[in-house]
Amino acid sequence: MAADAFKVTVHMASSLDGVIAKRDNSVSWFGTSDHYEKGITVTEQAVAEFLKTIDCYVMGARTYEHALELSKSYGWAYGNVPVIVLTHRNLPVDRPNIEIYSGSLDMLIDRQLKPKYKNVWVVGGAALAGDFIRSNLADEIRLSVIPIILGGGLRFFDHVGDEHTLHLEEVTAHKNGVVELRYEIKKEQV
Amino acid sequence: MAADAFKVTVHMASSLDGVIAKRDNSVSWFGTSDHYEKGITVTEQAVAEFLKTIDCYVMGARTYEHALELSKSYGWAYGNVPVIVLTHRNLPVDRPNIEIYSGSLDMLIDRQLKPKYKNVWVVGGAALAGDFIRSNLADEIRLSVIPIILGGGLRFFDHVGDEHTLHLEEVTAHKNGVVELRYEIKKEQV
Repeated sequence: MAADAFKVTVHMASSLDGVIAKRDNSVSWFGTSDHYEKGITVTEQAVAEFLKTIDCYVMGARTYEHALELSKSYGWAYGNVPVIVLTHRNLPVDRPNIEIYSGSLDMLIDRQLKPKYKNVWVVGGAALAGDFIRSNLADEIRLSVIPIILGGGLRFFDHVGDEHTLHLEEVTAHKNGVVELRYEIKKEQV
Repeated sequence: MAADAFKVTVHMASSLDGVIAKRDNSVSWFGTSDHYEKGITVTEQAVAEFLKTIDCYVMGARTYEHALELSKSYGWAYGNVPVIVLTHRNLPVDRPNIEIYSGSLDMLIDRQLKPKYKNVWVVGGAALAGDFIRSNLADEIRLSVIPIILGGGLRFFDHVGDEHTLHLEEVTAHKNGVVELRYEIKKEQV
């Protein structure tokens, strides 16, 4: 894929057992106390540089509401980058860069995303990420595997449906035991 | 953990979405056509040397039946290493190194495994692997992630139950796109 091509990346962080949200919605398990000697440490500056390459975030209603809730304690996670919230509900919007969208994913991509953006990240929830993958609208999947088994909660992959062949693009193990797996999602079906 | 300590390793191969068996039990998806340039290639000799360190395999009834079925085409996968099959059923045993066991896991470990072996591998199925993890009887988990999304089938982690903190021990990316994640399972609960 050309570096300047339009690309949709699904990004999720999950436990080893594929859970992305605990039943009580608590997020402390994202902060691992693990230490992996051979892992890398990424500086805040490098993270900031990387995040600059993302020019639009897409998320579902509950992910948005959760981000709003977390923003009270930690600030808004998505800076000034445009955020499109997919929902039929009437949700509060108190930032200029947030847009509510209620149409189809195909139309979203053709009319809203492709004309304006290159590097779109779908950041949840599981159902929306699954919709993108199942509809062959996601080009890449990045899964950050936290070193924990949760045993219960909302599963990332409960909504994916069909088979998709993947191409491993990159594996990055971090000092804190988080392993980031990056795959290209092949567009032809198996 | 000391190198000569008794250790139980749960080993599973799964798709990125955590499926270990397709509904039709076909196994062709284990053979990936992916190519990960930065991955390593392990020689058959290195694999054989490594497998020599395993001194007992433990599996459930259906995994055993599946291995018997596969052995007709590919030969018996576990060589002359002792295999203990956990089942209450009366299954065919046509090899001297296979033993049927129907007691508790605790007793299995204390009476059958610890006195005789050092490096025990639990190779499935999902329910048995989950029983070992949930009962705090597994020390290590090795998950080989195949570069595919299957979308449906038998999930590895549907039976784990509680939370377990993990320690990332090793990440190995192979030339064929398979990523092997190795974790120590911390014995104290979160």
